[in-house]
Amino acid sequence: MSVEFNSPYTVFIDEAERRVTVLDQRLLPHRVEHVDLKNAQEAAEAIRDMTVRGAPLIGVTGAAGMALAADESTETGFLIEAANLLKSARPTAVNLNWAVDFMLKRLKGMEPDRRRKAAWHLAAEICEQERTMSIRLAKHAQTIIEALYLKLGRPLNILTHCNAGKLATVELGTATAGIYTAFEAGIPLTVYADETRPRLQGTLTAWELKAAGIPVCLIADNAGGELMREGGIDLVIVGADRIAANGDTANKIGTYLKALAAADNQIPFYVAAPISTFDWTAKSGGDIPIENRSGDEIRWVRGVDKHGQEAEVCITDPGIATVNPGFDVTPARLITGFITDRGVFALEDLKDLRMNSHV
Amino acid sequence: MSVEFNSPYTVFIDEAERRVTVLDQRLLPHRVEHVDLKNAQEAAEAIRDMTVRGAPLIGVTGAAGMALAADESTETGFLIEAANLLKSARPTAVNLNWAVDFMLKRLKGMEPDRRRKAAWHLAAEICEQERTMSIRLAKHAQTIIEALYLKLGRPLNILTHCNAGKLATVELGTATAGIYTAFEAGIPLTVYADETRPRLQGTLTAWELKAAGIPVCLIADNAGGELMREGGIDLVIVGADRIAANGDTANKIGTYLKALAAADNQIPFYVAAPISTFDWTAKSGGDIPIENRSGDEIRWVRGVDKHGQEAEVCITDPGIATVNPGFDVTPARLITGFITDRGVFALEDLKDLRMNSHV
Repeated sequence: MSVEFNSPYTVFIDEAERRVTVLDQRLLPHRVEHVDLKNAQEAAEAIRDMTVRGAPLIGVTGAAGMALAADESTETGFLIEAANLLKSARPTAVNLNWAVDFMLKRLKGMEPDRRRKAAWHLAAEICEQERTMSIRLAKHAQTIIEALYLKLGRPLNILTHCNAGKLATVELGTATAGIYTAFEAGIPLTVYADETRPRLQGTLTAWELKAAGIPVCLIADNAGGELMREGGIDLVIVGADRIAANGDTANKIGTYLKALAAADNQIPFYVAAPISTFDWTAKSGGDIPIENRSGDEIRWVRGVDKHGQEAEVCITDPGIATVNPGFDVTPARLITGFITDRGVFALEDLKDLRMNSHV
Repeated sequence: MSVEFNSPYTVFIDEAERRVTVLDQRLLPHRVEHVDLKNAQEAAEAIRDMTVRGAPLIGVTGAAGMALAADESTETGFLIEAANLLKSARPTAVNLNWAVDFMLKRLKGMEPDRRRKAAWHLAAEICEQERTMSIRLAKHAQTIIEALYLKLGRPLNILTHCNAGKLATVELGTATAGIYTAFEAGIPLTVYADETRPRLQGTLTAWELKAAGIPVCLIADNAGGELMREGGIDLVIVGADRIAANGDTANKIGTYLKALAAADNQIPFYVAAPISTFDWTAKSGGDIPIENRSGDEIRWVRGVDKHGQEAEVCITDPGIATVNPGFDVTPARLITGFITDRGVFALEDLKDLRMNSHV
């Protein structure tokens, strides 16, 4: 049942052939399969149904969707419709908004015959930017991990929530970026991966870290607080879907609870995300819409059965009511710092970052 | 797949026939089945493998196990061994310790021919005490719920974790006791039931409340924090496995995270438990042992498949490492009050309660 990682690419934008291929992450960790996205509609669907997931990867897929749209029609109206369709597929993801709007702005005014070529070139460029972003971010995260290792003088225990790993990005991940490079630099560490109900993205984190040879421990979402209270966690690093101007951070549901536990136990809690995750138009967490997802994500759990066959089981009376917010907002006061591709920022330095990001 | 509740009894001690029957809760919410416990070994096994669960019910089953042991042998040594076996089946549960030690103390010095009859009578008495306990506790909990309803003047949203319901006790539950009686008294309310990974006892709570006609919403353990932040929860009531003299409370893993979120959002957070749950010999949470359970509870999820057949799925690479603490400790400072069968106590009143409980 366990699949070899072999670093399968999460997204591939072939500028010359005008082809977009993504890893179908719904089949992980049980099966590795890639699918072609044939048009903007399929790109939006892949975002909505979580074939692709992770804020940076969703942004790249959104850009690819715009390139596909430019292939489908020379009408500007069609391009605008495609942009709306793509953005609505995951309203919380600011990278998606950013990438799609950026594409639209650049393509809108172009002559139809230039537009198609430019669209594919821009999408490939955004993909490449994500790659270099995660390498830069890794460097800054590694500094924090190294400093903590020097201070404690023993192997580190790092907790993360959801999957903000290689599988969520184009290269090293965001939350995991510094973990990969610090481990490679010889710092002994174990990662505690929250399983992250309802979608269990923590199983992806466990899978990709194990494939890279990094010691990893899959835990129930409920366990992190007790592990922190017992001194079993030294550092928390999570990703982000959207960060408001005041530092309030929207991330996968459950992040807020871990931030509370980290604060209660004086454990550093970092948010790792590219600059593009900051939404300066959102003053605070109150301005970030929280997506409500299908209750079937709670009711049905996917996995493989005893015979190695993929299967789903219903854990409850199927008629039971549910609410299923996909994200929560962690108040800025609970966040030690923001690890970005431009460096690490404390809450009080966000103003400077904002000034510079408008230049 | 949904089963009618019909108030199946959780435990039945037939004093005359010297027979113990328990509801096999591992099959819920998919199937209702009772099993006979034939000896102390089977009673211990039923506690260990969660055939019976919930602190009060475990205590009653422990007492029944001692009655079965008195049936098996007239040797005092056998009785002592049985007591150790039963207590070790769930080291966190103070009710279990209490009930088993109480039985042992009373039976130890008796003549063998008197002992058997006394054992069954005592076990049945402990079962009856649990019944009246939950009715008394309900009255005090209802007072809190009624006061909140009067204050807010709108339907209440109450969150609970794990199952401290009818299924965990002999009558109305502990955390749910006041919910049942308040609802019956006409107070409109909805219960948000944490699914409570890894064992998903929240599905039992959802099932028993729905069966009683009480509006209930099953949520991921990750969701409670966000619901509280958005103002969607008015009150939290949880059960307890063991309460230390200083009020630190051991309960199902994940309780601590909800207590943190409740405190962060100024939402009252109550622990509902019988007096027998207080362990005055434990000074603080540090004195309460936390049981580590099998990692397979994380890796495998039980439910029913699309054809209505019971099935288990593995959600991860089966070789992945896990840690699985069964309980956590919620610091007393996060707890608004303790709802007991003797009334509601604030932290500062625990000393009085302790004095009186020794009388």
